[in-house]
Amino acid sequence: MLKKKAKRNQPGLSGRGGETARLKPIGVIRSAIKERSQAPKQGSEGAPDAWLEVHPFALEALDGVAAEDEIIVLTWFHQAHREVLKVHPRSDPKRRLMGVFATRSPDRPNPIGLHEVTVRKVEKNRLRIGPIEAIDGTPVVDIKPVLCGFMRGRKASSPARE
Amino acid sequence: MLKKKAKRNQPGLSGRGGETARLKPIGVIRSAIKERSQAPKQGSEGAPDAWLEVHPFALEALDGVAAEDEIIVLTWFHQAHREVLKVHPRSDPKRRLMGVFATRSPDRPNPIGLHEVTVRKVEKNRLRIGPIEAIDGTPVVDIKPVLCGFMRGRKASSPARE
Repeated sequence: MLKKKAKRNQPGLSGRGGETARLKPIGVIRSAIKERSQAPKQGSEGAPDAWLEVHPFALEALDGVAAEDEIIVLTWFHQAHREVLKVHPRSDPKRRLMGVFATRSPDRPNPIGLHEVTVRKVEKNRLRIGPIEAIDGTPVVDIKPVLCGFMRGRKASSPARE
Repeated sequence: MLKKKAKRNQPGLSGRGGETARLKPIGVIRSAIKERSQAPKQGSEGAPDAWLEVHPFALEALDGVAAEDEIIVLTWFHQAHREVLKVHPRSDPKRRLMGVFATRSPDRPNPIGLHEVTVRKVEKNRLRIGPIEAIDGTPVVDIKPVLCGFMRGRKASSPARE
């Protein structure tokens, strides 16, 4: 039944336990960072700019995204460990173990990454964005505008975009 | 092969087109809002508080989340339409069609919702959170702390949590 729903392109998840929903990448990160060990823990910690290549099926959804926009890129940490429920914050063994929901660890049951970045330029199916700590080949699953009051508001998006 | 990977609890998505990854709900929203038509478009637009019930398998990951924390709840809009690539912002037909990546429409290829909320209290496997516009039964897929500088910073989380 889940399979059938997926074919009909519906979300296929009702909130009851034991079910799953399928994420389909809408793009991919092309970055100079090739290994998880090279990646800063946050974009603000010296991360470079990167390309976000949008897959052809989703290109139409990019209409309206422009240079200088502040956006939230949602990625799928494809090298994360989903079975991890507790971590030492910042991988520091001297810090006490904490639940992953109280941290930004990429290791977590659903390893979705949130990256607030600036759009530097738009070139057909590619966005130049940054700074972003995601490694080369990281799948992108969504792009959202930063809303007024929701994020830090350096450049708030128009309420028209909600 | 993807199936096998999923069984081994790995992310199973490499960034190449055509693949999918499975999301597994870690909890569910229990809200007085029962229908999508009743829901405000954003939490800040008069939305109520709600309960976030965490499923037993993920309970350990909640260790460290406390009352007064500012958190980001990631949901799966289970009633969204995934085939939609363009919308009229705020469902206003007088506004020009825009790509969904330039809007916060719940209808989008991967209908993940981002909700910045305050934790009012923690009761065993439940968090009282708000304000939140998600409807009753909405699956929750992740919980993250708000980081310094990333969000509006009303109450920034400790850098120890990154």
